[in-house]
Amino acid sequence: MSNKSTNIEELGEFGLIDHLTKKFSIQQKSTLLGIGDDAAVIELSHDEVQLVSTDMLVEGIHFNLMYMPLKHLGYKAVAVNVSDICAMNGIPEQITVSIGVSSKFPVEALEELYEGIHAACENYKIDLIGGDTTASFSGLIISITAIGRGKKDQITYRSGAKEYDLLCVTGDLGGAYMGLQVLEREKEVFKANPNIQPDLDGHDYIIEKQLKPEARLDFIQYLKELEIVPTSMIDVSDGLASEILHICKASKVGCHIYDEKLPIDAKTSMTAIDFNLDPTTCALNGGEDYELLFTIDQKDFDKIKGNPHVSFIGHMTNEQDGKYFIDKSGSAITLKAQGWNHFDEQ
Amino acid sequence: MSNKSTNIEELGEFGLIDHLTKKFSIQQKSTLLGIGDDAAVIELSHDEVQLVSTDMLVEGIHFNLMYMPLKHLGYKAVAVNVSDICAMNGIPEQITVSIGVSSKFPVEALEELYEGIHAACENYKIDLIGGDTTASFSGLIISITAIGRGKKDQITYRSGAKEYDLLCVTGDLGGAYMGLQVLEREKEVFKANPNIQPDLDGHDYIIEKQLKPEARLDFIQYLKELEIVPTSMIDVSDGLASEILHICKASKVGCHIYDEKLPIDAKTSMTAIDFNLDPTTCALNGGEDYELLFTIDQKDFDKIKGNPHVSFIGHMTNEQDGKYFIDKSGSAITLKAQGWNHFDEQ
Repeated sequence: MSNKSTNIEELGEFGLIDHLTKKFSIQQKSTLLGIGDDAAVIELSHDEVQLVSTDMLVEGIHFNLMYMPLKHLGYKAVAVNVSDICAMNGIPEQITVSIGVSSKFPVEALEELYEGIHAACENYKIDLIGGDTTASFSGLIISITAIGRGKKDQITYRSGAKEYDLLCVTGDLGGAYMGLQVLEREKEVFKANPNIQPDLDGHDYIIEKQLKPEARLDFIQYLKELEIVPTSMIDVSDGLASEILHICKASKVGCHIYDEKLPIDAKTSMTAIDFNLDPTTCALNGGEDYELLFTIDQKDFDKIKGNPHVSFIGHMTNEQDGKYFIDKSGSAITLKAQGWNHFDEQ
Repeated sequence: MSNKSTNIEELGEFGLIDHLTKKFSIQQKSTLLGIGDDAAVIELSHDEVQLVSTDMLVEGIHFNLMYMPLKHLGYKAVAVNVSDICAMNGIPEQITVSIGVSSKFPVEALEELYEGIHAACENYKIDLIGGDTTASFSGLIISITAIGRGKKDQITYRSGAKEYDLLCVTGDLGGAYMGLQVLEREKEVFKANPNIQPDLDGHDYIIEKQLKPEARLDFIQYLKELEIVPTSMIDVSDGLASEILHICKASKVGCHIYDEKLPIDAKTSMTAIDFNLDPTTCALNGGEDYELLFTIDQKDFDKIKGNPHVSFIGHMTNEQDGKYFIDKSGSAITLKAQGWNHFDEQ
């Protein structure tokens, strides 16, 4: 043991996991994929696999109980884990939920949290199969593991994108981020004067995107009906730009994405402009949209082109050609991620 | 939502989980067992099942970094989850590890933690397949999910014990608890005068039982060799009495256990006496031994009777006959659990 002291911020969240787990090797033949994608992959039979994903949510880092109702929090905590299973093109089946909570927290508050968890389990047809409830000295901690299933030849990894594949995204982007901005603004107003009612009028859409996002399980089922297996897929949790770069890195490809093709809801861009923010920047870097970003082979384009839930935002290129964002004037800008590093926020 | 405010302590840890999850139903046909045993059971094929168990460890509640070296903590966090898979008579294969940690924690400290996790993965031949690393405002939080596998007809539930079955336990009891007492005493001495070196001489055995317990995976493999399938099994995490009562409740049986048959190592009883504690009480209620408590049909007794790792501490009776502890004078005392309720400690 050396006396060196390195700050966690120096490595960042992804760098830290890579650093800490680089010595670990795979010993079980059932483990087909460990760390590095949205979920791990375990072999069940010659044609079936299981998907396992885990997430920890910490009060004050991932959520703020001042504006996050506990029922919504429970729902969202499940949805973001279900989203990871969807990102592998799998169907979620089970979750475990561990909670760390202060003894000062009344049972009725935990009941609300579990009402949200229950609503999500009903909606996504998954079973709560285990968990742990323990004391915590400060704040609420929620750790969820989601388990799903899929056909071995239909699992979508981050690493499968090929040159000329089309880059697609479901739904619209930046809404969850703008919802958070509105909630943060109203929190500050409330802190300054608790008698003023929060002004959330007209922001229902983006606030719901923030407080109660849905995993796109509907879209996974739709892909099956269309008989399309994306060549790669990831969910948009940290922001579109960051996720595209994950696919490029894992697949060893480049990309061109087009500003004019980014799906941004009118309510999102209107609010962004009100906040003096660029709607495109919010869509690229906003995070927490939990939409699905995926690539398809061009041969599948005709099957999906009329689908109202999908936008075609660009295509993949040779790795040497670089990763570019093409703005509305036609200028190519190197794509960069302004990701989220929770360790910076403390 | 009512305005009632109920304290978590009123329900206790087990009561709280039961209360919060009572509304949840099983929707997936692959879920054979949800909450209520050491691990959940998921169907893999007509004869094979998967076992899933999860635990959250919180600094200041489950461990104290003043005397718990991080490497040992990493090892123990894995071992206690592996122990849950063993308690179902399964073989552990994978784990996920989520960590919440302050940004003030140096990377080198996390490296030590992961060295312990790595050592446990190597020892138990399991793969680290996923995880999350996030900021936390206070202290270290470790959430682990362990996944294992077993033959459907060899899984041991808490509910399978029958009248006349023999009650058995591996190893010896109370050591981990007495190790904790020694460590706590030396912590107080150190706080009073940091120049005094801790006096841990002669306590290696019980301190190792506390700081670096082993899951009894060796014993699961031994049971397979002997072709014995226990009728019920549980691991001793909260204390022998508490675990026996779990089996009695789930199996709807009573029991007689005998003071003179409790396996207590001489070092444990010697230290207990030094601390003015009754060794039997430590063995019954000490917790954290991570030995296996199980019942076998009498027909299997001959196969296992010579085994040095097993003590036969009593037998199961008809439920109406009650649950009794027979002391050395032959008096029968109603068995009670002085369990651990972490919510009381805050």
